[in-house]
Amino acid sequence: MKPVRLALLGCGTVGSEVVRLLHEQADDLTARVGAPIEIAGIAVRRLARDRGSLPVDPALFTTDALGLVKRDDVDVVVEVVGGIEPARTWLVEALRAGKSVVTANKALLAEDGGALHDAATEGGADLYYEAAVAGAIPLLRPLRESLHGDKITRVTGIVNGTTNYILSSMDASGASFTEALEEATALGYAEADPTADVASAKAMGCTIKLLCIASRVSGPSGDSISVRVHPAMIPRTHPLASVGDAFNAVFVEAEAAGQLMFYGRGAGGAPTASAVLGDIVAVGRNRLAGVRSASESVYADLPVRPMGEVVTRYHISLDVADRAGVLAAVAGVFAKHDVSIATVRQSGRGDDAILVIVTHGAPDAALAATVRELQALDIVRSIASVLRVEGGA
Amino acid sequence: MKPVRLALLGCGTVGSEVVRLLHEQADDLTARVGAPIEIAGIAVRRLARDRGSLPVDPALFTTDALGLVKRDDVDVVVEVVGGIEPARTWLVEALRAGKSVVTANKALLAEDGGALHDAATEGGADLYYEAAVAGAIPLLRPLRESLHGDKITRVTGIVNGTTNYILSSMDASGASFTEALEEATALGYAEADPTADVASAKAMGCTIKLLCIASRVSGPSGDSISVRVHPAMIPRTHPLASVGDAFNAVFVEAEAAGQLMFYGRGAGGAPTASAVLGDIVAVGRNRLAGVRSASESVYADLPVRPMGEVVTRYHISLDVADRAGVLAAVAGVFAKHDVSIATVRQSGRGDDAILVIVTHGAPDAALAATVRELQALDIVRSIASVLRVEGGA
Repeated sequence: MKPVRLALLGCGTVGSEVVRLLHEQADDLTARVGAPIEIAGIAVRRLARDRGSLPVDPALFTTDALGLVKRDDVDVVVEVVGGIEPARTWLVEALRAGKSVVTANKALLAEDGGALHDAATEGGADLYYEAAVAGAIPLLRPLRESLHGDKITRVTGIVNGTTNYILSSMDASGASFTEALEEATALGYAEADPTADVASAKAMGCTIKLLCIASRVSGPSGDSISVRVHPAMIPRTHPLASVGDAFNAVFVEAEAAGQLMFYGRGAGGAPTASAVLGDIVAVGRNRLAGVRSASESVYADLPVRPMGEVVTRYHISLDVADRAGVLAAVAGVFAKHDVSIATVRQSGRGDDAILVIVTHGAPDAALAATVRELQALDIVRSIASVLRVEGGA
Repeated sequence: MKPVRLALLGCGTVGSEVVRLLHEQADDLTARVGAPIEIAGIAVRRLARDRGSLPVDPALFTTDALGLVKRDDVDVVVEVVGGIEPARTWLVEALRAGKSVVTANKALLAEDGGALHDAATEGGADLYYEAAVAGAIPLLRPLRESLHGDKITRVTGIVNGTTNYILSSMDASGASFTEALEEATALGYAEADPTADVASAKAMGCTIKLLCIASRVSGPSGDSISVRVHPAMIPRTHPLASVGDAFNAVFVEAEAAGQLMFYGRGAGGAPTASAVLGDIVAVGRNRLAGVRSASESVYADLPVRPMGEVVTRYHISLDVADRAGVLAAVAGVFAKHDVSIATVRQSGRGDDAILVIVTHGAPDAALAATVRELQALDIVRSIASVLRVEGGA
């Protein structure tokens, strides 16, 4: 039986796990693919590093990644190096030559996914990247294949494990932002202290999550896609509300299937390797059968809706002066921009008074104009926070 | 372009939705399959029923299901009738003749799935049944395809919407069993009142769910599969604990991927039809490419472990006499059967005293023997309940 031969680009945390799983699950993989999977070569930056514990012939290692990709005996290229270049050059070369590609490279797909898709079409090759999306969660195959008879209207994800860890622990233990920040090992940015917002969210029966949202929006000039990433309040009864710690989850709404959620580990060598292996089996099977993966949906290239037109509800905290007529003045600004107020709540008294306003759905641009005008009012000392509210009616 | 032609068996709630989706999503389906999907015929029990609102030629309806299945111009048979016979006869006939089958028939798969698989192998045809497992949740494709490079160790599901609805509403609102039972529309069985267990679960930081569990167990004589369905306590922090109302969820544990969960609607015409459509596209694509779906894993036919050897933790409530030495006598029975006690709690006093015991992991047979012996003690008035505890350390 002619084997399916892999070029593995990268042998760090994920690459080592891929090698280990290919070895441990060899019998099962052969049964599932219909032929054995063999490693043709492993490209690494330095040969010196000790890889004695890996179940693989040391002669397979090379520092010439491009040379390995170009070899005639390579069927599938698996890239777990990351970064834009030289990964893009390798993968475009592979795809144009008709070699299937499995990649976990989020950065490259975000930066230049189109170039990879074009190269795949040009070479008639498969491009799979389940490991680049929501870690180990099987998401792309269900979306592309299980739901291909349905119309997906909205995808909402918790896909940043670090941020979710901090927000979860503040919510669960009442830890301060500083404590939660210290607990999380690797947060690459700083933020204004959201402690008051977390307290306010609790009072509203909500919790705060960093969400990425893609939704299909119907409009007078046809359908479009709204795409955004921001923290938002969601009701505690929402399935995403209970996704804690370093877990990821993606909540999918489809016309016929209704609400679905996919949950799992967002990162880590073994979980990512599991997703890579799943893709290796899929492209291996496709190669043996002489077919390519399902093509994209006809609605895959809808235009992206400008952020200013995206409609959501908002939670706004204002630090206001303790003076008569404050609420009337503030409400007047909302009314002027046609932003309808759902609830108003005052917390604290005197100089500590905070006005918390939750709106009905309003376009982002109208809210931004409202906030700019509120800021200019002398009775508003500061805008303490502006947060979107998602997942409700 | 030669179309893929379907025989639809059944045109009730699910079947009508399938017809509607095939019509509404026709362009998208053609793009995804690579050829148009056409309905060759629709088998129904009675022609008389008014189906005027369905977007389909009335001449396609027939009462001769077997005749329709046998027609040469049928490529794929879609069965949404349910029940064992005549569905089995139709599907075996279709598969043996090399026609692909998509079915939502839980009963038939549970009763005689092997016969269908054998017929599919014999005819070289595809057998897909995503809609028969956990409703609209894309589960089989992720398990069979996304995780085919991984080793699945345990699958835990909440797959009975009615029971889950009752247990959720008791937990959430404190409703009594009777009230919750009245709320749910269609529960086909009666149970002893679990109100006290729900109260006890809350005190333990747990909630009660009806779980189905399949786990891979390693033993001295090789690996086996433990399969069971029972109510169990699970910690409130477990992702399954927050699955409420009529939703289903399946929690999957795999060696490399770690913990995954799939969540969605367990029933309903449109969600089930969405799953059927996904399968129709998959078998349609396979037919055009001349391939069959992935074969089963090499570990798919591990022996089933006898229930008596399955190890879990238990929560046992005993109605005991108010007498000195009761705890010593009860503890002695547990010790005799080598069932280790984790915690003991007494609730109530005097004649109302209830002894609540939570054990460490113990084989089902040892626990059953313990319970039998406890029942025979004259200081034990009755065994109020025996519940398994899952999802913890």
